[in-house]
Amino acid sequence: MLAELAIDDLVLIAEARLALVVDPIESAAKALGETYDANWSLDPEDAFADRSIDAVVIGSPTNTHIDMLKRAVAADKKILLEKPIDLDLARIDAAWAQIRDRAPFVMLGFNRRFDPSFREVRERAARGEIGIVRALRITSRDPQPPPAAYLGGSGGMFKDMTIHDFDMARFQLGDIVEVQAMASDNGLDAFREARDHAQAVIVMRAASGALVTIVNSRSCAYGYDQRLEAFGDAGSLEAGNWTATTVRAASATRTEAAGPILNFFLERYMPAFRAELDEFVQAVKQDRAPAVGFADGRAALVLAEAASESVATGRAVRVA
Amino acid sequence: MLAELAIDDLVLIAEARLALVVDPIESAAKALGETYDANWSLDPEDAFADRSIDAVVIGSPTNTHIDMLKRAVAADKKILLEKPIDLDLARIDAAWAQIRDRAPFVMLGFNRRFDPSFREVRERAARGEIGIVRALRITSRDPQPPPAAYLGGSGGMFKDMTIHDFDMARFQLGDIVEVQAMASDNGLDAFREARDHAQAVIVMRAASGALVTIVNSRSCAYGYDQRLEAFGDAGSLEAGNWTATTVRAASATRTEAAGPILNFFLERYMPAFRAELDEFVQAVKQDRAPAVGFADGRAALVLAEAASESVATGRAVRVA
Amino acid sequence: MLAELAIDDLVLIAEARLALVVDPIESAAKALGETYDANWSLDPEDAFADRSIDAVVIGSPTNTHIDMLKRAVAADKKILLEKPIDLDLARIDAAWAQIRDRAPFVMLGFNRRFDPSFREVRERAARGEIGIVRALRITSRDPQPPPAAYLGGSGGMFKDMTIHDFDMARFQLGDIVEVQAMASDNGLDAFREARDHAQAVIVMRAASGALVTIVNSRSCAYGYDQRLEAFGDAGSLEAGNWTATTVRAASATRTEAAGPILNFFLERYMPAFRAELDEFVQAVKQDRAPAVGFADGRAALVLAEAASESVATGRAVRVA
Amino acid sequence: MLAELAIDDLVLIAEARLALVVDPIESAAKALGETYDANWSLDPEDAFADRSIDAVVIGSPTNTHIDMLKRAVAADKKILLEKPIDLDLARIDAAWAQIRDRAPFVMLGFNRRFDPSFREVRERAARGEIGIVRALRITSRDPQPPPAAYLGGSGGMFKDMTIHDFDMARFQLGDIVEVQAMASDNGLDAFREARDHAQAVIVMRAASGALVTIVNSRSCAYGYDQRLEAFGDAGSLEAGNWTATTVRAASATRTEAAGPILNFFLERYMPAFRAELDEFVQAVKQDRAPAVGFADGRAALVLAEAASESVATGRAVRVA
Repeated sequence: MLAELAIDDLVLIAEARLALVVDPIESAAKALGETYDANWSLDPEDAFADRSIDAVVIGSPTNTHIDMLKRAVAADKKILLEKPIDLDLARIDAAWAQIRDRAPFVMLGFNRRFDPSFREVRERAARGEIGIVRALRITSRDPQPPPAAYLGGSGGMFKDMTIHDFDMARFQLGDIVEVQAMASDNGLDAFREARDHAQAVIVMRAASGALVTIVNSRSCAYGYDQRLEAFGDAGSLEAGNWTATTVRAASATRTEAAGPILNFFLERYMPAFRAELDEFVQAVKQDRAPAVGFADGRAALVLAEAASESVATGRAVRVA
Repeated sequence: MLAELAIDDLVLIAEARLALVVDPIESAAKALGETYDANWSLDPEDAFADRSIDAVVIGSPTNTHIDMLKRAVAADKKILLEKPIDLDLARIDAAWAQIRDRAPFVMLGFNRRFDPSFREVRERAARGEIGIVRALRITSRDPQPPPAAYLGGSGGMFKDMTIHDFDMARFQLGDIVEVQAMASDNGLDAFREARDHAQAVIVMRAASGALVTIVNSRSCAYGYDQRLEAFGDAGSLEAGNWTATTVRAASATRTEAAGPILNFFLERYMPAFRAELDEFVQAVKQDRAPAVGFADGRAALVLAEAASESVATGRAVRVA
Repeated sequence: MLAELAIDDLVLIAEARLALVVDPIESAAKALGETYDANWSLDPEDAFADRSIDAVVIGSPTNTHIDMLKRAVAADKKILLEKPIDLDLARIDAAWAQIRDRAPFVMLGFNRRFDPSFREVRERAARGEIGIVRALRITSRDPQPPPAAYLGGSGGMFKDMTIHDFDMARFQLGDIVEVQAMASDNGLDAFREARDHAQAVIVMRAASGALVTIVNSRSCAYGYDQRLEAFGDAGSLEAGNWTATTVRAASATRTEAAGPILNFFLERYMPAFRAELDEFVQAVKQDRAPAVGFADGRAALVLAEAASESVATGRAVRVA
Repeated sequence: MLAELAIDDLVLIAEARLALVVDPIESAAKALGETYDANWSLDPEDAFADRSIDAVVIGSPTNTHIDMLKRAVAADKKILLEKPIDLDLARIDAAWAQIRDRAPFVMLGFNRRFDPSFREVRERAARGEIGIVRALRITSRDPQPPPAAYLGGSGGMFKDMTIHDFDMARFQLGDIVEVQAMASDNGLDAFREARDHAQAVIVMRAASGALVTIVNSRSCAYGYDQRLEAFGDAGSLEAGNWTATTVRAASATRTEAAGPILNFFLERYMPAFRAELDEFVQAVKQDRAPAVGFADGRAALVLAEAASESVATGRAVRVA
């Protein structure tokens, strides 16, 4: 998904040029290449081998990420990598051990860090507007669960969906030291069979002492519910949902009714995706570290594993 | 109406005691008297003649107001008089000529002056929060038109309904110097036959230079729409509608839907009615002028007549 | 507190009459009695011994509740008892063993069950408006912590403050089967010394399968934050905070700014207190069980103890 | 302005290609041309004479519109013309008499017709959601007045600023038959000297019977206030302002405070400008009449003149 969006936006970002589209499906590669006046190929090696290409966006299936990452690093490319890095922490650490000596430029695709509302909360909190931040509350509900087929290979709710929320907690508060979670399959076979969750609440303690609450659901009748509340000694900052228009309706039975909230991530996080790509291009051109890196991708996965352990054991889990 | 409410509340206001209920309908007088442990009578003279009674609330039909007022003044009572004083300006002026030498205590029942939200707008504007006030906007829509029978004798929308809005404009901005109005019967026979309006927009210029817009409707599907906006050089203050609870609903088709707004005036303006009676009792006890007096009742009627003239002639009308 | 309010309201409820005020402080007892035209006494026995008194409201300090309760039951009074019943579950069970044979009428003072917004959420959810209820979220923040002296004897945040939220969870969802909690003293000495919490997040599983999140704080810069969200398969219902007026301000730096939220419980829950007393009086007169009884008071305390245990052990606690 | 935006967007609209930029200022023409990979010129004739160019966007100063329009029509171009057509109705009619035989394609730049919120109001009203539409209310306040130098040549508030609101009234309700207006210079020299208004309220009657209220101000402390309310027998639809993010702040003195509203027209109406250009391109390609044409531009000017006359005479003005 991000790869597709990236193409659309790289074309728009004046300082970057889309050189090559790689997709194993020929018709897709060709169509995109032609639309954006770029070359196309079925083989990622064509990108890695091309000296004129500075940077690559990796949006391939999760289980290919580490392979792609290693090859891109070996080819000295700068990399924007879709989350999660991988579903297995040991593999992630092994990969890092192999590539770290090259001090690779790896930016992780945590698009929500670039959402203007969530950024504003962070910036205003950082300026002290709400005093010491004591609590963070993240509401994150997908409109519909993915297909059952996807569920099995997704790594589970925590690694697939909550991963964004774990990163958001770290983005707002920094390191997390303790994780507690409760989950439910809502009595639905699809989740039970995939040993996955239909909903969960994760509570975490930040190193700062602040408490984080993440409320997740795999389905939400009214759309893609994405909210954030930072609560501090001097007040609070809440980022709410977006609607497509500002229209409010009144009738004999209700007043001030807004329309549906933006749904799904392409609509809701479009400004975030644009800002993310802009950060990637700027960091590449300025040859500086990107705003969100490999270590952030790993840290979010650590929290996902801790949450899974807490659900399994009923215990709070300390995080190193 | 106000009389009935007054009874309920006079009982509650520790510093006043309900002595006598007067109602020409015996069953009504008796029931109220017994409920509130007060005497009851069919004849207002019993109230006027009773030396132990300090103050009276006159909530009789409009066409009896002036007679009641004169008799109450003659009996040296302090008076809370329901609006409008009368439908005829000449009669009002004649009545005042008769009673003014006694410097009577006459408070007018413009309950909305006591609404906490409208008062807050006035007080914050007076403290300079929004700079020079340039414009005022009043939205005032009744949920349903009165019965056709009532329409004929009501004196028309401007004297019967907009009268409150004219007073609100004066409460917020002081004197009005020019009135312009456009109205419509919405093509409905009931209004056409009563030579009355189903809706109107009145635009006025205050002596301060501020412009006032009053938007009226005799019906409103979503209830009793009562809003106010003060707009000044440094910002605005808007008083919105009240709902019975704070519940907001989201579903597949809408989000943030609030419930119906409070409806009708008893519910919507209950705190205002209480505060109004409290002001009446306090002014009586402190032997001082009430917050809103006879001249205010007259001034609102002058604006109502100017609005009618503007509708009839299509001209802006200067007010002395 | 409730006792004081009760007096004010019992006077208003036409069907009940305040017979006797009991307070160990003579001046207080006398003042209240005179204000409300009732007898007064320093000794609760005067209430219990008076055959003409049908019902009593017990609002004495928590550690006297059980003694008062037993004496009131022995005297065949119907009882409205302030929460919590006691801080010790064993004492509660022992007391119940002693009185249960008399099938006493004991209503618990969980005023929030009578809040119109929270009731509306429950009723609309019960009517199926949001489908199967999957999650409940309670936000409950006090404006300021109680004095340090009070903290020590309060039984701790869970028994003193969260007790209302435990009951609200049961009111909305029924029985709770699992409790998990994380808490923090926010690094403040007052809480550390009292071995109490400045904030906590409690996550619970209802027998229905729904997950409950309670977010608590002992202080809140913007007032008494009391919100509720019910989330179901077909939508959500959120009950928000109340402000004193509907005024919204716009200026060069902000728009739609509402005023402070109602603060503190007397203001915020006044309609709830009135409705609670009304239910008490009606249940007494109709000789039927009250809406919330002794077992509800006990159940909330069980949850408080489970939450404390979870904080102490870091484990989720099963509740019988 | 529109011309500049058009360039940016024409590049984006896949089905159109920017061929030529014309600007009398060489540096501007060159810079834009190079940025967008288009030719550039100082002379509009180069556009008109180029047979390969299908359509032109005219965003030159108002007093050159008619000349440009005639030349473009003579050259058989399809035209998007910025509003107003001209400040003088006689000149407009004379121009039309000259060009009408060619049945020219002229789309008027009333961008607000393409605002998603205002369109939604119109569409939902058209579907009958609020019953018969009885009233329309437009709030339209600019953040700051234009420079004094501009004021003089602008044609005045009604032709320069309210022209959009007149068109919006027609967009929502169709033909207007009566206009009444009251205005004020707010006692400010800049407006007095330009014989212009700092604020105005315009009330109009639509042929349908609905009443329209337009509230205008040349300055607004909290930004670019652009709202719309349609009120009908079955309810209302209100389109509110946009803020840059969804963040709401609470502190000891206020709650739910949103940020500043989008400001100015480029930000606020960006989606509208895009949709407007899209409609232009589609209509050109499909060789059909555009959504808003020459007659709409003329009709808005007729209303502006009627409003001026009403302010000058204090009379309601009938519109043919």
